[in-house]
Amino acid sequence: MVQFRADMRYSPLLTDLYQLTMLAGYLEEGMETKPAVFDLYFRTNPFEGGYAVFAGLEPALDFLEQICFSEDELEYVSGLGLFKPRCIEYLRGFRFRGTVTAPPEGTVVFANEPLLTVEGTLAEAQLVETALLNIINFQTLVATKAARICHAADGAEVFEFGLRRAQGPDGGLSASRAAFVGGCKGTSNALAGKLFGLPVRGTQAHSWIQAFPDELASFRSYAATFPESTILLVDTYDTLRSGVPNAIIVARELYEQGRTLLGIRIDSGDLAYLSHEARQMLDKAGLKDVKIVVSNDMDEFVIESVRREGGQVDIYGVGTSLVTCAGAGGGALGGVYKLVEIDGEPRLKVTGDLAKSTLPGKKSVLRFAGPEGGLIQDVVCLEGETIACGATVYDPTNPMQHTTIPSGAEIRKLRDMVMVNGYRLSTKESLAVMAARCRKEISCLPNGCTRLINPHRYKVSLSEKLAGLRGSLIDRVKNYGA
Amino acid sequence: MVQFRADMRYSPLLTDLYQLTMLAGYLEEGMETKPAVFDLYFRTNPFEGGYAVFAGLEPALDFLEQICFSEDELEYVSGLGLFKPRCIEYLRGFRFRGTVTAPPEGTVVFANEPLLTVEGTLAEAQLVETALLNIINFQTLVATKAARICHAADGAEVFEFGLRRAQGPDGGLSASRAAFVGGCKGTSNALAGKLFGLPVRGTQAHSWIQAFPDELASFRSYAATFPESTILLVDTYDTLRSGVPNAIIVARELYEQGRTLLGIRIDSGDLAYLSHEARQMLDKAGLKDVKIVVSNDMDEFVIESVRREGGQVDIYGVGTSLVTCAGAGGGALGGVYKLVEIDGEPRLKVTGDLAKSTLPGKKSVLRFAGPEGGLIQDVVCLEGETIACGATVYDPTNPMQHTTIPSGAEIRKLRDMVMVNGYRLSTKESLAVMAARCRKEISCLPNGCTRLINPHRYKVSLSEKLAGLRGSLIDRVKNYGA
Repeated sequence: MVQFRADMRYSPLLTDLYQLTMLAGYLEEGMETKPAVFDLYFRTNPFEGGYAVFAGLEPALDFLEQICFSEDELEYVSGLGLFKPRCIEYLRGFRFRGTVTAPPEGTVVFANEPLLTVEGTLAEAQLVETALLNIINFQTLVATKAARICHAADGAEVFEFGLRRAQGPDGGLSASRAAFVGGCKGTSNALAGKLFGLPVRGTQAHSWIQAFPDELASFRSYAATFPESTILLVDTYDTLRSGVPNAIIVARELYEQGRTLLGIRIDSGDLAYLSHEARQMLDKAGLKDVKIVVSNDMDEFVIESVRREGGQVDIYGVGTSLVTCAGAGGGALGGVYKLVEIDGEPRLKVTGDLAKSTLPGKKSVLRFAGPEGGLIQDVVCLEGETIACGATVYDPTNPMQHTTIPSGAEIRKLRDMVMVNGYRLSTKESLAVMAARCRKEISCLPNGCTRLINPHRYKVSLSEKLAGLRGSLIDRVKNYGA
Repeated sequence: MVQFRADMRYSPLLTDLYQLTMLAGYLEEGMETKPAVFDLYFRTNPFEGGYAVFAGLEPALDFLEQICFSEDELEYVSGLGLFKPRCIEYLRGFRFRGTVTAPPEGTVVFANEPLLTVEGTLAEAQLVETALLNIINFQTLVATKAARICHAADGAEVFEFGLRRAQGPDGGLSASRAAFVGGCKGTSNALAGKLFGLPVRGTQAHSWIQAFPDELASFRSYAATFPESTILLVDTYDTLRSGVPNAIIVARELYEQGRTLLGIRIDSGDLAYLSHEARQMLDKAGLKDVKIVVSNDMDEFVIESVRREGGQVDIYGVGTSLVTCAGAGGGALGGVYKLVEIDGEPRLKVTGDLAKSTLPGKKSVLRFAGPEGGLIQDVVCLEGETIACGATVYDPTNPMQHTTIPSGAEIRKLRDMVMVNGYRLSTKESLAVMAARCRKEISCLPNGCTRLINPHRYKVSLSEKLAGLRGSLIDRVKNYGA
């Protein structure tokens, strides 16, 4: 039994209070051990984009493995005056012993297909909802944003520089991790480098340049301290009239010592124009190997326009928009966690809007690909159901629309069990493996899915049995409501 | 010496790598002990609004008090292969021994006035930049968003329910704290309740209702478990045809036991219409005391429209938009940390845009108020300068525009020293004191400053001496650049 907790990331109190009040209620009713199944999914792709990149699974499993109440946490809950001693005793013995099904991190996923499925007792599966949503929502959102930005950079490297404007210390840490899964090559965040083994990068700020009597002196000093890894910030006074010429002087001085200037960084102004002009000046000085880094309010749209307008950029440093996931959707993935089965019976939540109804029952997600690996569509079906080529599958929002699985399509299950009765099934993957998976999957998407605006909509269909089950449960609710 | 760190919020590695490379360079040059002054400020008010609410100071001071390198952190830095043994030794002995000037939390602040000023050695003041920005940027942003939302709610209570969509576990924790400073009455986040002593709230989710054979059974069960604090979620099946009538049945059953139903919660649909109709139904049933709680994608604009359209709401639950600070500006406050003095000499960073030039030198911020306490304007001046009524002060972006301090205005200093040579000067304030300050200051703003769209622009002017100093430094840079 832990007396006091130092690392708040694993506190079971990282939850909405109502998870505890519901648990107390289930205990009163003797319902706490009923077997239950919850699905975690989102209803629209983030950023009005064509896909999402699943991330956050390993931290979520870490949480599930470690969750337990410390003595001071029990004291706090008890002191709220809401819970009976029996409930506090239940919490004292609480461990997560449920089963989790999920795709590996870096998998490309889509709206309305279950990502995590959690099976366990009603009490345990309910209690972990908030933390799972918190972890998976944010990391999936950042990985998706990073993938969009890296795709826009079209081969140029992208580094994440966002800690100073991240949403709290852990907003920065989680973001650095997920950004790497989505395609970034590293981060400026030294703690993320240490905790996750990510490459870290950084040279100097404007304050460094200003701390010296003049720009050239500041450049020379930095190059003397880091002769192997100097990137010079050239926009403190005047990029093309002062910064780049001074950088060229230092590059030549390094060259005389048998070394090379690694690069220059431009952090303000018209980045397309300045990077293009700087490239000309460097090339003319025989410095074709000196790389150009640009930063300052970059996102996927800015990067696309810098490239379109002839910018010459080798490395993009992306901060705020990446770590806060700015853009359509407003900085949050609207992931939800819904009860889909209890006591072996499928459950449905209906609303006026068919698109917001849950998909009842325990389900599988199948992914169909063409012979060259190009993705065709996903199908959500009931667990154990087989969907063969030629099968008819249904649009989830419009039951009149259906389509046929083409012959010759390859089938794979998108998800596997990753935790059984509270025990992890496999060792942790490295972030590099996840990042490679993400890169490969994005390259297999149908044309138009990676478009930034009005992307092609990848099909996620329902099997006939699942569509039928949902239809009959909706009818039942309609009769109940009348 | 700490061997291993459990609480990552106080790690000195919570920094951009370039803070460490610059420090190494300063050590090489023997510049690390030069006295330096940095200002932390933002350039435009968040959300295109008329003001901001300063928050995050106490956590920032906690960080400065605690920052030191553990053995495993030194090992990591050393293993990067960038730093000499002398630099690692310097880090081993590192403590923050600088001086910090700031307003208390909950103070209303504006663009372009220094919030934190950090004085210390160049090395120490530089090394803490990233963490200070991370903490102050996010908490100030959330406190401001909360103040906007609470102002829109016009007396109805607002609770923060955002943990599940917050940006990481700490994104949720920091947000709960800052939301309380900005005016929220509490949170759903149990850990924030424990750590910060905030009121916590929560009852049941849709999954609770669905776990029972029917809605009425689920309501009765909850009321039996929590007879003193029942709020019933009425929108799982049909708000007005099923949820509210069932809630009325349970309210009457509670009444027969001498108890009251605390409220109902509506979490979907047309909240203005549904809350209005529900109010009628409750009142007709003699249940005037039953409160109506609404949630689901609320922000300041939605709340304003719910009120305008006749919604009858006692309590708003606000989640995603509050904790992720959705809206103009995209989830981040663009706070910056700029060198303004080194070795006793004022420093300036110029750009093509006068509005982005720094304000050089050590400065004070004075706030002028009318006889009834209504705020008139702020003036940034050089430290020790006196600004009397009748003095002429200058627009920071347009030197031709000036104004005169009216006679009879009351003057106060916006900021005080809060840490001297690494030691905190006063005990921590309670969050309730900060929240009360925020409420009072907002009530003293000029008309129009709290308007959500196109608000009145509160004047922040420069003293004649400060404007003159900046002008002469700009001239000097212009000559240098030519």
